[in-house]
Parts: sequence; structure tokens; C-alpha cells
Amino acid sequence: MEYTFSDRTNNLKPSAIREIFKYASDPEVVSLSAGNPSEEAFPAKELEEISSRLFRENPIGILQYSVTEGYPKLRQYLLSYMRDKYNIGSENDDILITTGAQQIMDFATKSLVNEGDVIITEAPSFIGSLNTFRSYNAKLVGVPVEKDGMNMESLEKALAENKNVRFIYTIPNFQNPSGVTTSLEKRVKMYELAQKYNVLILEDNPYGDLRYSGDYIPAIKTLDTDGRVIYAGSFSKVVSPGIRVAYVIAPKEIIQKMTVCKQASDVHTNIWSQMLCYEFMTKYDFEAHLEKLRTIYRKKAKYCMDLLDKYCVPKITYDKIDGGLFIWCKLPQNVDMPDFCRKAIENKVCVVPGNAFLTDENDSSNGFRINFSTPTDQQLEKGIKILGQLADKIIK
Amino acid sequence: MEYTFSDRTNNLKPSAIREIFKYASDPEVVSLSAGNPSEEAFPAKELEEISSRLFRENPIGILQYSVTEGYPKLRQYLLSYMRDKYNIGSENDDILITTGAQQIMDFATKSLVNEGDVIITEAPSFIGSLNTFRSYNAKLVGVPVEKDGMNMESLEKALAENKNVRFIYTIPNFQNPSGVTTSLEKRVKMYELAQKYNVLILEDNPYGDLRYSGDYIPAIKTLDTDGRVIYAGSFSKVVSPGIRVAYVIAPKEIIQKMTVCKQASDVHTNIWSQMLCYEFMTKYDFEAHLEKLRTIYRKKAKYCMDLLDKYCVPKITYDKIDGGLFIWCKLPQNVDMPDFCRKAIENKVCVVPGNAFLTDENDSSNGFRINFSTPTDQQLEKGIKILGQLADKIIK
Repeated sequence: MEYTFSDRTNNLKPSAIREIFKYASDPEVVSLSAGNPSEEAFPAKELEEISSRLFRENPIGILQYSVTEGYPKLRQYLLSYMRDKYNIGSENDDILITTGAQQIMDFATKSLVNEGDVIITEAPSFIGSLNTFRSYNAKLVGVPVEKDGMNMESLEKALAENKNVRFIYTIPNFQNPSGVTTSLEKRVKMYELAQKYNVLILEDNPYGDLRYSGDYIPAIKTLDTDGRVIYAGSFSKVVSPGIRVAYVIAPKEIIQKMTVCKQASDVHTNIWSQMLCYEFMTKYDFEAHLEKLRTIYRKKAKYCMDLLDKYCVPKITYDKIDGGLFIWCKLPQNVDMPDFCRKAIENKVCVVPGNAFLTDENDSSNGFRINFSTPTDQQLEKGIKILGQLADKIIK
Repeated sequence: MEYTFSDRTNNLKPSAIREIFKYASDPEVVSLSAGNPSEEAFPAKELEEISSRLFRENPIGILQYSVTEGYPKLRQYLLSYMRDKYNIGSENDDILITTGAQQIMDFATKSLVNEGDVIITEAPSFIGSLNTFRSYNAKLVGVPVEKDGMNMESLEKALAENKNVRFIYTIPNFQNPSGVTTSLEKRVKMYELAQKYNVLILEDNPYGDLRYSGDYIPAIKTLDTDGRVIYAGSFSKVVSPGIRVAYVIAPKEIIQKMTVCKQASDVHTNIWSQMLCYEFMTKYDFEAHLEKLRTIYRKKAKYCMDLLDKYCVPKITYDKIDGGLFIWCKLPQNVDMPDFCRKAIENKVCVVPGNAFLTDENDSSNGFRINFSTPTDQQLEKGIKILGQLADKIIK
């Protein structure tokens, strides 16, 4: 039988990162291409304790069907936690628990975006979200990212020139892949532009709690007087990605529609996972755990930047980061970036070429992304040394 | 801010069952409206053992990111298990693990159906699947269900009269809500019609292992010489629904496209859940467990049918079932079914009105669905007695 697929998915391909992962799974290859939390960052012992207690006290609660909106205790707790700690969420907002934050992108797009409608994103941006937007045939318009976030003139131009813009997608803290944090001024300006052009903002904040230097900057959601910000939070980087738990705080009407989407997708998120998150947040010292993560990643980030300084700079440059898991490296403009990344793989080190993160993968980029949370220190040193040697060979 | 939603989700409402659940959560109400496995059906002790062993032996494996296709051991095992035991799947097929079987409906529709394309379903059919199809603006065409499955003349008429039919959706065993099992003759005929009109079949089989009387009938997938059957299996009714694990066996090209959809939705299914299913199937006596479930439900179904005979027949009639969790009850044609279901709720018993399962909820039905797996025996007797008394009052 010959198969024909829907228009929306007809041109979808497995992501470029995914293809790179094939090389990365070769044990001889040093992978700087992942985005996995460091293994030492998992509160494995605590989660094991919680899990066995849940099985003892409430086995049926773990195993039976649950409600689409999410574990009620976790929802309530997160609503007050996010309001008290970060001033995120108002009485007009509600919360939905999702199976990872990718699902928030899925339901936001499904419920808000017709085929052909426009989503404005940072350029570069997170490839997973871009692919979700593409999977509904949304038109993507990328706005260049500077050291302090999107270029605001380009953002306004994109809003003015495109019809049917549905939302601006932004990762304001330690952006994947650029590592950039959007300044408060630009957050305020972005919200004003969203008001002026009457569009929504989808604020994706998986790395916010992983700030290890510099000053905290309030979320765009804290500026949300009109109910135009959809805020996506996640447990993937602060507890565990394998358990697939995230949450979206947004205006009630939008949460209602996303809930109907969830009912029509996976009915509800694994209830055991949700209970783990709730119990870990409330019965253990969650703040101390976050501080531990920051200590781990602060050290790993510094180690990685020191290695870049030692082996790669100035042929490869990068911007210092204050948090998150990624560093964006830049080659001189005249260097063929895809060729560089290919040669890196031939030399047994894997990085993600920058064009993979653009709204059109065929556009050119002189950057590539490296991740320092997944590899060991030894692997990091080996990998970055190889990148430096390659740069010495290629860049005159 | 005023919100506008996408065309595909604009008219989506929370399902009627969901609204009924609001009454059902009142502890004074006997709910015959759910579809939950019986609490005694969960292998809680075994899953607890597996879970603590996994935490001891492989905590990082549970907590770290995993692959979109699913836990490799579970995928491989299921492929050979389904081929050896049921002759399901060929060398042209592949498997994808999903977060419950609802997600199979999601990805099948997303990848195969453009807005306005047609999906042919049984009438009545499972409301969850109908809502998933609706959430992509598919046009639903219902084919009446008889005692041995869809009326084949109506099915051929629906195939002949509708353009852009993408697939036939069927639950061949102990259908939800009708309890009907499609005969072998009709399975063969359905496949022939799918060939003649060149459409796919989405075969949804959550209850197949819960046959407690009558003869086994091979799946439509066993007839699939062309690669036109997408087979959906699930652990929800045989292990646990709360852990959200299902699987789809389908032609490789379709699995590839659905895998891209999954990447863009929840990245991968909770890996702990997948490991639980694999370990339970391979390290415990899974066949004995299935036999235990059949014993539980055989008894409960008989008890329920005996109560219907005692309190309701002949004013309320029903068709005897050979498996599954649901019984379809019929009122005389001149009785106002929605009014009956409303009065039932006023009398503290909750059933699902039959029109909720039609492709157009505004069409009329003289049936309603009762579930016997969730309530206790005492609740069942109380609820069915009330239904009988109500029938005595309303039906002259």
C-alpha cells in the first residue's frame, strides 16, 4: 500500500539533533550534543523513598485512572508556590500538569494556531519546540537573538509585517541553544509589543532555577496584566526528565482548551510521577536541592568555559553564561560551520550545528551548541581539546 | 484579553462523560458510568517489587531522558509476543510505545487526517476516540453496530459516498460502549472493503485479553496482507491505566511518522512505566495474571447480568457479553433516554446516555452504557435496583 500523510506532517522529518544522536551513541564518540541533566543531579534516593512509601500507602492511587488536569495536590501546591516565590500566576490563571513541557508546546499550538498562522521565535531557538510548531503547519518567523535577548526592532518588524501572528515563543533564561538571558528591559518591551499587536507570549522556562551567577530577573508572566502570557515550567531539569512532568500556568480559558486537548491526547500524566514531584517538593528540602544543582552546574559550566579558554579561544569564541546547560560557540564568519561539525564527528566529538536551531534549517549559522551537563569532566576535556585542535587546523 | 482558538479546537467541549463524572464523584451516587479496572485487578504487589528493584539496580535508567520509540526491551518483546501469540505484526511492521492508547488515536489522526477528511467509526463508539478525531476537525461518519459488528452494507455505503475517507476506526472485541464483538466474517469483509476503497483500518483492542466466554476471534491485523491495519494495544486494562502505557503495531512508514508526532508531543513515555510492563510480562506469570483478570470480570459480569435480569428486564433489555467491561442497555423506543438518565442521577445512580457515543451527540439513542468493573457488588446491586425501579415508574 502507498501511504499519504496529512499536510501538516507531510514534510516533518526527524530532528537534526536526533540524527546526530546516532553518532553520539557510539561509545568512542564524546557527545557534547545532548541536553540531559547530569547524573549526579538526580535525587534518586529521595525519589526511591517516596516511591516505596506511595506503593505501601496508596497502591491503587498510583495505578488507577486519574484526572486530566493533574494531581490536585500538586496543582494547588504549584499555584501557591509559583505565586509566593516568583509572583507568577493570578486569580485569572489556572494550571495544567503535562507530560513534559514539550506537551505544552503541543497543546498551545493545537489550541491556538491554524495552519499557516505565524509563531514568532527567537533565532536560534529550541529545535524541539520549533518541530512541534511545524507539526501543525505553523509559519515560523525568527527574530535574531542578541546578548540580552531578541532584537526588539526586528521583533516589532515581525509583528507588524506578519498577519495572524498567534504568539511569541521565548525562552528568557539561559536560552537553549544560545545561553542568552533576556534583560528586564527587553522583557518589558516584549510585553508592550505583545499588547500593541494583541498577541500572546509563550514563555518557556525550564532552566530558570539553574541560575548560578548574576541577578535574578522576573519572568515575563509577572508583568501579565492582560492575561496574555502562557507560562511553561518543568521538572525535567530540576528533578528528572524520565518521569515526564511539567506544568503550564495560563489564563483559565486557555487552560480549559488545553485540558480538552490533553483529554484527547494522553488523558492524564502518569500519576506516580506527579505524586513524586509533589512529595519531593513538600516533604524534602527542595530549596536545598536546587542549591545543590546550582553548585553542580556552576562548577561544570566554569570547568567547560575554562577549557574553551584554554583550547579554543580565540579561534572559537563564546559568550559567558549565568545559568542553564548550554554554551553557544561561534566560528569566524568565513568558516564553513556544517563542515566543521562534520569534521568534529569524524574526530569523535559531537556538537549540534547552529542551523538546526533556525526557523529555516537551510539558513546559515556560524554557531554551534555544546552541552556540559551530560559529559563527565574527562569527556569534556577530551572533546573540547579535539574541537580546539580542529579549529587550529581549519581556521587560519 | 479576548481569546480566539484554532478552528480545529474551537467547538471542542469537555466530553459528556466528563460532565457526568462530576455527579459520579458525589459519594452518595452509585457510579455505573466509569470504565476503570476493578481495584482487585491490579498486580500492585508485583509492580511494587519491580519498582523497588529498578530503583536499586538502575536509578539513572528510570530518571534520565529516554528514546521516543520506547524502551527497546519492551518494544522487542512485544513484537515477538504479539507475533507468536496472536499472529499480529509482520516484517513490514514496527512498534511505538505510547502514553496510553488515546495517544495512538492522536498521532494516527494527526499524521493521516487533514481537516475535513473522513473517519468512519462504529455508532455508537468510544467517546474518547471520537473527541480525538474531532480535535483535528475530522468529519465523522457513523456506521450502526449490530450484534456481530458494523452493518456491512452501511459501511460500504459510507465508503462509497464519502470522499477522502482516511480510515475505519473499530473496536472489534467487546466494544466500548456496545459490548459487541465483531464476527470473523465481518472482520474479513471489513478488510476487503478497506482494500476495495483503499483506506486504512485503525483497530483498537484494549479489551481483547478480557474474553471470559465464547471463542477467540483473530484480530483484523492478522489479515493484513497489504499493510493497511494500524493495531492499538494497551496495558491500561490488563496492568494499570495510571501508568499510561500502550503500543501501536503498524507499517513502518506510519510508525515513523507517528514517532515524529510523539517527538513533538511528549518526547517519550515515562520510562519507569515501560520498564514495569516489560518486567511484569517477562519475570512474572503474565498468562496466569490474565486468567485471574478473566475470573474476576467473568464473575462481575455475570453478577451484573443477573441483577439486570432480576430488576430491569424486560423493561430495560441488554445483550449478553463475552468479555470487556461494559454492558449496553436499551430502553423501549418511546422512552426519552436523556430524561431517563437525568432521573437516574436524581435517584443517585449514574449511567452514560447513549447519544454521548454517537458521531453527532444530537442524534437520538435509546441506549445507555453501564460499567460493572468499577463499582463494588453492593454498589452494583443498589444501582441496578434503582434503575429497575425507575424503569417501572417511567415505562408503562
